[in-house]
Amino acid sequence: MAEDIKTAQELAQHQKSISISEFFEKNRHLLGYDNKIKVLLIIVKEAVDNALDATEEARILPEVYVKVEELDKEKYKIIVKDNGPGITKAQIPKVFGSLLYGSKFHKLRQNRGQQGIGVSGAVLYSQLTTGEPTEVVSSTGDGKLHRYKLKIDVKKNEAIIIEEDTIPNEGKWKGVQITFVCEGIYREHKQSVLEYLKQTAIANPYAHIIFDSPTGRAEFQRGVEKLPPEPTEIQPHLYGVEIGMFSRMLHDSKARSISTFMQTEFSRVGKQTADEICKKAGVDPVTHPKRVTDEEVVKLVKTIKETKLMRPPTDCLSPLGEDFILNGLKKELAPEYMAAVTRPPSVYRGWPFQVEVGLAYGGSITEPRIMRLANRVPLLYQAGDCAITKSIMGIDWKRYGIDADKLPTGPVAIFVHIFSVWVPFTSESKEAVASYPVIIKELKLAIQEAARKMQLYLNKKFRSVEAAKKKEMFRNYSDELAQSLAALTGKKKADIYKILMELAEEMYISGDLGGEEGEPVIDKSTDKKPKAKKKPVGEGGAEGEEMEEESEGSEE
Amino acid sequence: MAEDIKTAQELAQHQKSISISEFFEKNRHLLGYDNKIKVLLIIVKEAVDNALDATEEARILPEVYVKVEELDKEKYKIIVKDNGPGITKAQIPKVFGSLLYGSKFHKLRQNRGQQGIGVSGAVLYSQLTTGEPTEVVSSTGDGKLHRYKLKIDVKKNEAIIIEEDTIPNEGKWKGVQITFVCEGIYREHKQSVLEYLKQTAIANPYAHIIFDSPTGRAEFQRGVEKLPPEPTEIQPHLYGVEIGMFSRMLHDSKARSISTFMQTEFSRVGKQTADEICKKAGVDPVTHPKRVTDEEVVKLVKTIKETKLMRPPTDCLSPLGEDFILNGLKKELAPEYMAAVTRPPSVYRGWPFQVEVGLAYGGSITEPRIMRLANRVPLLYQAGDCAITKSIMGIDWKRYGIDADKLPTGPVAIFVHIFSVWVPFTSESKEAVASYPVIIKELKLAIQEAARKMQLYLNKKFRSVEAAKKKEMFRNYSDELAQSLAALTGKKKADIYKILMELAEEMYISGDLGGEEGEPVIDKSTDKKPKAKKKPVGEGGAEGEEMEEESEGSEE
Repeated sequence: MAEDIKTAQELAQHQKSISISEFFEKNRHLLGYDNKIKVLLIIVKEAVDNALDATEEARILPEVYVKVEELDKEKYKIIVKDNGPGITKAQIPKVFGSLLYGSKFHKLRQNRGQQGIGVSGAVLYSQLTTGEPTEVVSSTGDGKLHRYKLKIDVKKNEAIIIEEDTIPNEGKWKGVQITFVCEGIYREHKQSVLEYLKQTAIANPYAHIIFDSPTGRAEFQRGVEKLPPEPTEIQPHLYGVEIGMFSRMLHDSKARSISTFMQTEFSRVGKQTADEICKKAGVDPVTHPKRVTDEEVVKLVKTIKETKLMRPPTDCLSPLGEDFILNGLKKELAPEYMAAVTRPPSVYRGWPFQVEVGLAYGGSITEPRIMRLANRVPLLYQAGDCAITKSIMGIDWKRYGIDADKLPTGPVAIFVHIFSVWVPFTSESKEAVASYPVIIKELKLAIQEAARKMQLYLNKKFRSVEAAKKKEMFRNYSDELAQSLAALTGKKKADIYKILMELAEEMYISGDLGGEEGEPVIDKSTDKKPKAKKKPVGEGGAEGEEMEEESEGSEE
Repeated sequence: MAEDIKTAQELAQHQKSISISEFFEKNRHLLGYDNKIKVLLIIVKEAVDNALDATEEARILPEVYVKVEELDKEKYKIIVKDNGPGITKAQIPKVFGSLLYGSKFHKLRQNRGQQGIGVSGAVLYSQLTTGEPTEVVSSTGDGKLHRYKLKIDVKKNEAIIIEEDTIPNEGKWKGVQITFVCEGIYREHKQSVLEYLKQTAIANPYAHIIFDSPTGRAEFQRGVEKLPPEPTEIQPHLYGVEIGMFSRMLHDSKARSISTFMQTEFSRVGKQTADEICKKAGVDPVTHPKRVTDEEVVKLVKTIKETKLMRPPTDCLSPLGEDFILNGLKKELAPEYMAAVTRPPSVYRGWPFQVEVGLAYGGSITEPRIMRLANRVPLLYQAGDCAITKSIMGIDWKRYGIDADKLPTGPVAIFVHIFSVWVPFTSESKEAVASYPVIIKELKLAIQEAARKMQLYLNKKFRSVEAAKKKEMFRNYSDELAQSLAALTGKKKADIYKILMELAEEMYISGDLGGEEGEPVIDKSTDKKPKAKKKPVGEGGAEGEEMEEESEGSEE
């Protein structure tokens, strides 16, 4: 065989840039497009996540319309329409026609989106599988509708505009409507569009969602008429910064000194702390940021890691809160009992995060149901890789009165929500949360706290069942007993019988579970323990408290 | 609270592009940089993989030098040097200073690298954690050494050249030497640099590797003095193509007609097949590629899926082969028994792939050891997600004489190698193979075939132990037996005893295991069954055979 021997010059000829669109076209499974059933879910999810982000950011109660229509065998049209602020004409081709383009990547803010590849990934998948462009119609309330049909030029990672027009907007609608045509298979099972929307309705009870599917309409009514508090954008925390990023920020900074740089570009650094770090690192606090040497950067970052700093502010986080969680669980699951727990904020790699848990038992819930959510978005795939699943499996459910084989097997719904300015997902498809030890710890604490509440109810419930049985027995023998006692005491049988019946009633009352007829029992008590003055590394602590740097590394 | 209500115009101001370097700087866990112990392994792996790809492509027997040196607490210097063809001066800043840049992404060829983000990802991680540039020295044999110290400008995704010089190359060395300075922790355990190099030595027995670690030198000698056959580049297969990509290829094609386009740009399409596809799709075969309409593309792709096509050529795949596998296992593990199996090539999504398996038992192997490899690269992390692990767990090992609890627990080493022009990894960190059903099937068949061979040996081995016991018993009683027989028959006791001893010897021979003293027993027999005329979808079939399109979708 004549071997084809390559020299460096020959090899060099083949070297070239790969556009991010080409990369994901070939690696679309990294964005989750790895089976035909799942793809419909992903496309709906990317569009609905954006719709909810946009409406919330504009402080509008979301109205989301979703339609999945079968056009042909394995070919579907997907429409997602919202009542958000709309997208300006100039931005439409960029947002939908380029991967890695968006407003959320560079901000430290609790959003559903973070990467700038979700919705353009859906455009890419659609054109790849059907050759069809995606249609985007938007109005920002200026009396005009802007309509585009576009594809992505994968080599350039930019939009190819197929059609473009602007027409008067007769109605007053503001918002965005996207129409994808893609290959897929529609199913209604545990990991479907329907389930995603149902969980979205639970986690976002202020959203009104209508879903027209190939099998009919499903409507998710609003449970509350107000939005959760708006999360604010924060600055990075010194603990999260690494040498390379610190250098770059220094270079780009407009601050006049290294001390003011740290005070103005990082979260919760006062003059005293900034000066102290500089002094310990042997750097003059008044040094101009651009004059800080590489060696000084290394010393500064090293010193930062050894310095106790204030925790980042946590108003950047917006919990659903116990009322919203309970509202969502009640309206969609109609359980017999519910409890919710919100943990105090904690921190991983300098980024604040928080966990909240809802548990619902019985009623219309007949089998176990786990709902994993990150920044209010349901996660339906890759459960096994997810820190949430691992945390649930790490709990001894039997101790809390729930049958389990690692995961619960009883009639319980577990709703676990993690939210952060930067959720660490295990892949671009954002299907599972990475298992940082501090995240696992917070998840477990929250689930355990909710489980303890439920245990009290279940104990009562089982006692009540026992009591009812006893009462029944008591009643059954009351006639004979009354007769015997009458003979013994010489009193009237009827009087004795009446006393016995009253006793039986009391037995019943002692087993009362509380709650109104037809309404779930809700436990909103808190069982927070008094806080220790100094928290060990990585535990949830209050805002502004001092913290030490955490150890890095996720569980394998 | 005064709410910060955003309009579309305000939101638009924050929209911007995200460079791929920024993306992976923030998401470095997607490249595998998620714990300090693992990072040293990843950096060595990226550089060594490139070194082996380059030497093999230039048909040079690889000489690879690796050094990991502790500079400070959690700070290491990593040097990787090869004897490959080198990299031209102009290419150095591009290859090391940009993510998504390389020669392998656009080729359908069996390479270790495929994405163009491995080694530049290592440069990015190094500068991020230590602020230090990466040094690259290369010579292409033109008498000069080109030396660069560079970092990555993450906003532009291009190199920042810190130092650059060209000096005469006194020696004759050609190749590349890279020096990284990064944060990390050095350990020697199952998922370490040492283990990676050991498995690399097994899978690449033609490579000579020297490793200077913080604990001393390890040297992996060459076991064979020749390279495996060179894999060739192939064209895409029609079954792997989707509408969007087909359109794009049509647009870029220089062919004069749709029929010649299919014949020249795809693998194994003859004129008859091309014309037949066109006719079935209602498209004139002489239509110019640029005149094919979108509707015609859809019809053509649909027709392709319904047409029986030849399997892709498989000389694009380069197996290690049974000799190389056995050589590698023997030199690094010194087992008592070995067997190897190479399956015929198969196809997923239009891409050829192949599986080979080595099993080694006993000898210096005292505990189970699983080696997963893809395109000759050991995979040490994310075992649970990997199709290889799932396949091993899917086998009833006890049936083959190996103790197991899902995974084997006995003294057996399982070496599983999958190779393809495009290995479907589950993430950019390339740590696990995606579970396409056809891949799982091929893996299982290969492992089972090897296990059947080993079972024969183990049966013999256990029979031989039994036989030795019987012989011992027989010897112990032979004196008495001979005496009794002598009394019964009237023959001489000594003669009878001699006969009995001969019988005992024969018992022993029947339990012989084969193999030379101190050498492992090797089973190279094949147990291939006669091939069925028509293979069911997705099964391994011979090159050039007809195949049907596979069903898509990976196991969840």
